[in-house]
Amino acid sequence: MPKTIKKVGVLTSGGDSPGMNAAIRSVVRTCAYHNIECIGIYRGYQGMIEGDFKDMGPRSVNNIVNKGGTILKSARSVEFRTPEGRKKAHENLVKAGVDALVVIGGDGSFTGGLIFNSEFGFPVMGIPGTIDNDIYGTSFTLGYDTALNTVVDCIDKIRDTASSHNRLFFVEVMGRDAGHIALNAGIGAGAEEILIPEEDLGLDRLLDSLQKSKASGKSSSIVVIAEGDKIGKNVFELKDYVEANLPEYDVRVSVLGHMQRGGSPSCFDRVLASRLGVKAVESLIEGKSNYMVGLREDKVILTPLEQAIKGKSEIDRELLRVSDIMST
Amino acid sequence: MPKTIKKVGVLTSGGDSPGMNAAIRSVVRTCAYHNIECIGIYRGYQGMIEGDFKDMGPRSVNNIVNKGGTILKSARSVEFRTPEGRKKAHENLVKAGVDALVVIGGDGSFTGGLIFNSEFGFPVMGIPGTIDNDIYGTSFTLGYDTALNTVVDCIDKIRDTASSHNRLFFVEVMGRDAGHIALNAGIGAGAEEILIPEEDLGLDRLLDSLQKSKASGKSSSIVVIAEGDKIGKNVFELKDYVEANLPEYDVRVSVLGHMQRGGSPSCFDRVLASRLGVKAVESLIEGKSNYMVGLREDKVILTPLEQAIKGKSEIDRELLRVSDIMST
Amino acid sequence: MPKTIKKVGVLTSGGDSPGMNAAIRSVVRTCAYHNIECIGIYRGYQGMIEGDFKDMGPRSVNNIVNKGGTILKSARSVEFRTPEGRKKAHENLVKAGVDALVVIGGDGSFTGGLIFNSEFGFPVMGIPGTIDNDIYGTSFTLGYDTALNTVVDCIDKIRDTASSHNRLFFVEVMGRDAGHIALNAGIGAGAEEILIPEEDLGLDRLLDSLQKSKASGKSSSIVVIAEGDKIGKNVFELKDYVEANLPEYDVRVSVLGHMQRGGSPSCFDRVLASRLGVKAVESLIEGKSNYMVGLREDKVILTPLEQAIKGKSEIDRELLRVSDIMST
Amino acid sequence: MPKTIKKVGVLTSGGDSPGMNAAIRSVVRTCAYHNIECIGIYRGYQGMIEGDFKDMGPRSVNNIVNKGGTILKSARSVEFRTPEGRKKAHENLVKAGVDALVVIGGDGSFTGGLIFNSEFGFPVMGIPGTIDNDIYGTSFTLGYDTALNTVVDCIDKIRDTASSHNRLFFVEVMGRDAGHIALNAGIGAGAEEILIPEEDLGLDRLLDSLQKSKASGKSSSIVVIAEGDKIGKNVFELKDYVEANLPEYDVRVSVLGHMQRGGSPSCFDRVLASRLGVKAVESLIEGKSNYMVGLREDKVILTPLEQAIKGKSEIDRELLRVSDIMST
Repeated sequence: MPKTIKKVGVLTSGGDSPGMNAAIRSVVRTCAYHNIECIGIYRGYQGMIEGDFKDMGPRSVNNIVNKGGTILKSARSVEFRTPEGRKKAHENLVKAGVDALVVIGGDGSFTGGLIFNSEFGFPVMGIPGTIDNDIYGTSFTLGYDTALNTVVDCIDKIRDTASSHNRLFFVEVMGRDAGHIALNAGIGAGAEEILIPEEDLGLDRLLDSLQKSKASGKSSSIVVIAEGDKIGKNVFELKDYVEANLPEYDVRVSVLGHMQRGGSPSCFDRVLASRLGVKAVESLIEGKSNYMVGLREDKVILTPLEQAIKGKSEIDRELLRVSDIMST
Repeated sequence: MPKTIKKVGVLTSGGDSPGMNAAIRSVVRTCAYHNIECIGIYRGYQGMIEGDFKDMGPRSVNNIVNKGGTILKSARSVEFRTPEGRKKAHENLVKAGVDALVVIGGDGSFTGGLIFNSEFGFPVMGIPGTIDNDIYGTSFTLGYDTALNTVVDCIDKIRDTASSHNRLFFVEVMGRDAGHIALNAGIGAGAEEILIPEEDLGLDRLLDSLQKSKASGKSSSIVVIAEGDKIGKNVFELKDYVEANLPEYDVRVSVLGHMQRGGSPSCFDRVLASRLGVKAVESLIEGKSNYMVGLREDKVILTPLEQAIKGKSEIDRELLRVSDIMST
Repeated sequence: MPKTIKKVGVLTSGGDSPGMNAAIRSVVRTCAYHNIECIGIYRGYQGMIEGDFKDMGPRSVNNIVNKGGTILKSARSVEFRTPEGRKKAHENLVKAGVDALVVIGGDGSFTGGLIFNSEFGFPVMGIPGTIDNDIYGTSFTLGYDTALNTVVDCIDKIRDTASSHNRLFFVEVMGRDAGHIALNAGIGAGAEEILIPEEDLGLDRLLDSLQKSKASGKSSSIVVIAEGDKIGKNVFELKDYVEANLPEYDVRVSVLGHMQRGGSPSCFDRVLASRLGVKAVESLIEGKSNYMVGLREDKVILTPLEQAIKGKSEIDRELLRVSDIMST
Repeated sequence: MPKTIKKVGVLTSGGDSPGMNAAIRSVVRTCAYHNIECIGIYRGYQGMIEGDFKDMGPRSVNNIVNKGGTILKSARSVEFRTPEGRKKAHENLVKAGVDALVVIGGDGSFTGGLIFNSEFGFPVMGIPGTIDNDIYGTSFTLGYDTALNTVVDCIDKIRDTASSHNRLFFVEVMGRDAGHIALNAGIGAGAEEILIPEEDLGLDRLLDSLQKSKASGKSSSIVVIAEGDKIGKNVFELKDYVEANLPEYDVRVSVLGHMQRGGSPSCFDRVLASRLGVKAVESLIEGKSNYMVGLREDKVILTPLEQAIKGKSEIDRELLRVSDIMST
């Protein structure tokens, strides 16, 4: 029989994403609803090591459901990668009476939680929070939907000036290892071509596509490029390459950068965060551990953390075809 | 063997919703991609009766993916409910060489399409376009996600003034027969209570909940109410009732109204529209008819139109519980 | 020689408006810059009576420049209208060592400040915070610019659905006694007609204008109506009147309501708040009292509070003509 | 006595800016109001040379008041810098019966108009359209207010992630020769320091300010840098310099880029565009030429084009002090 959970600790770790605050709020209020105590752990695992804790009652999370970032702050902790660091962290949790942990973050944060669990048998539950949507076991990570809206909003603005001047723009979006943002925001923003880490379209195809686009009567174009595009050139190298090969083009570059991580979460992300927080806490209460909560096929489900870490969140290849058709 | 499709007609019908233009664009470009002609039919079935058609090449839908409303306009047609009206409409389509129809709209529009098909054997494919998300066979209708963002954005603004003044607001959102918007936007906006057509929480519970909320230290509250809430009182009657029973409250009312139907579509709605448009046209090419395309369990699927019309898009009752927990 | 100011109290009073937080921040930091203490007074004059104060150092206003509402909350105080109430308030200020007051609010709040000053000789400086822009002595009140953007954003959404359906919309905006919002947002949103408290255009002109609009080939129209329009009919009565006289029209009504008061302030309002806060505090330091700071003819200026209260902020009548021309 | 104006040509030239469409609409409708014809000239002076004209009646500008970019497109024309090019342009205007010109653009565009007038005595009126606000004779250029909102909106998002991670961000905004955007958006976004072309604060002060900021307890900071900052280092060089001298800082860079030029115009820009368009056309009708219309001290005024070109739009130095105080 599982130990009764009396106090849950919650932390955010890794790159922040919109919806993390809504998830914290959900964890805190689900605890309150079930008469469990809750503490917030500041700055991720580093704050766990330093004992940077704060009691969180249901009113402590008022008016944060719509705020970007994370009120618990986030940090990367080198010390937590050492057995000593983790030991210190465990002692702090025990001292504070915490008997289960909700980790909101990405792959790296889950790996930390898994090791922590294996060493101390400490119950851990993960909530996927990252704009990259690169986590196996959920169709949507927290912040991904908001980031897509931020990106299309930016590209809509760029398109205003692109079509006023009949210009070609290369827009770099986040996604070092995953093309979800580029692919979906590219379709949403009406991009001519989309370059992603998962698929090497080849430079020939890019040139070919731009030439066809001009021939078809399009006067301006947007190409969306993930940070980690497979071609292996960064966005400025691509600009040089295209200008060298298609001298009729004067390419402008826009790197959207960190603003993709901020902003008030979309309704989708807020609802998702609320649902995942409830499931995370209630799963801990039921005695479960080492799972990630996620949304798949319209249902909130659990995936073993190990699988979530090892698995790969594949892009939907049908979208490559849709993108192709849309740029007809 | 199905007749080869050479020319597709596309129309929007019923209440407009964000993403309709993106769907029109997708239908037009998918036709072009497959070397099929496409005509736009203005003002829904009424324009079909009046022969208000326009050839649509791939460039005719430039720069509309991000625009709210519908460039083909929408209208309700009394005449199309008569056999004579439908006969005229059919003659116009035949004269124009159109041999298949894509109908973007809701239940009523699909019913029209189904009757039209039964009378003339004309291939019809439906795309669910309505902000209400009240159509069976898809987890998301076009415009629903955008409407949710519009609603939470409005309520976020209302909350600013509500919490500055420690006030209680009743916010009425769209949804005469379906509580999807109220329920999801209510959770997203952090509502205290949510009243929907599907569930009669009862007036006692509302009073009880407001009293508890005040007791728990909340200084301001938002109650989200669907147009067609089950309690059977409109938002102003509810205000009077609450003020009569809880004199400590001075209730303000906000009816969000038609703005919920407009605005630039979210990335989610744009991508969904693109995917559904491709599937609709390619299904017609494959000889299919009388289906609605939709997204369920993360996959684009077909549902017989008849089923889409008769079935009911149920709210996720788990969300009622989540809402409850969130207002702890 | 004026008494040296050592501690400033700041409060927000009356209807809240976006930019109030930015003004609070500016007052707090200007005090810190000049090595003066600052306390925040909660819930306006009521909090002054109840001694609801809080020390505010420069870090206490971190990350509020972009937040709607007011962290100091606002309230209307019946008690402050009595000599006893004001006496209590004065005693609390003296006890707390406060020797000057910055009042952020509208006419009513300034009147309170003026009476308070006349009774106790207490230095008072006003900052105009209201979305209505109805204060003499400044071309822009705090929150007005943000409210205009909120209104045009809403009407842009309404226009999407209006033009999809060829409909006529009556949109009611805030402004019981002043037509600034209606007039400017009406021009900004491309309204057909604008009804304001300052000018009785007459019902005939409205009907006439709508008929001309239809004749000129416009398929949809927006009429913007201030709460306090001079015609003396509310927006629903106007709808009935127009439908009775122009049966070809099916009028939809949208009342924008309290959301106009919320939202993240525009850059203009944030900069204005920062400038006015600096001027208010530095004017107190210079020994001035009973002034309102404002922006006129591109310059930050002082206007005697008495004049600010008595004077009327006239609409720019040239804008009526511009509106007329724009709806050609 | 001035020649009666019967047909006005309107063009947009140089970098596009939000509000240009609203200005085009205003010019077109003011012409219609006064029973004057109007033609649109595509792609600025280049389209004048190529005779790329289009008749514009009042309905041709429906639904553009809220659109970014310019429906008339913009381009830079090398040919217009030659007497032959301008001769061709003049012949086209004469052939089309155009007898006056409204030029919407910046300094360069006005210079072109002035030369054109000096050679052919052709009446020219300028409307200042550029986001940079760097034109003498107006306190606000079209698009400037919108760009400020875009910039603070982006920095608000960046701040979410900056404060979650306690990071320092350098944000580069537009403004090669003018610091208006950096200075105002910097204050609006709560920047720690603001580097502009007009003022060399010096690297020492930057380091000093960052150190003080950390010492004062600020955990994250934003520095806003105009493209053409006086220090003469670009934003990446500044990052290297700061990291070399303040090793405790890990600086992130964000270059906002072209999105600053796009987007739906703010209400302020829409109203301004409407007012300036009316004044431009009516001034031509009154026989005036070679002026720029602008808004100064709350009034629409005329400035001789020559002066507008030669004069310098100074930043408000008081804002430097306000910025300083705000970062206390």
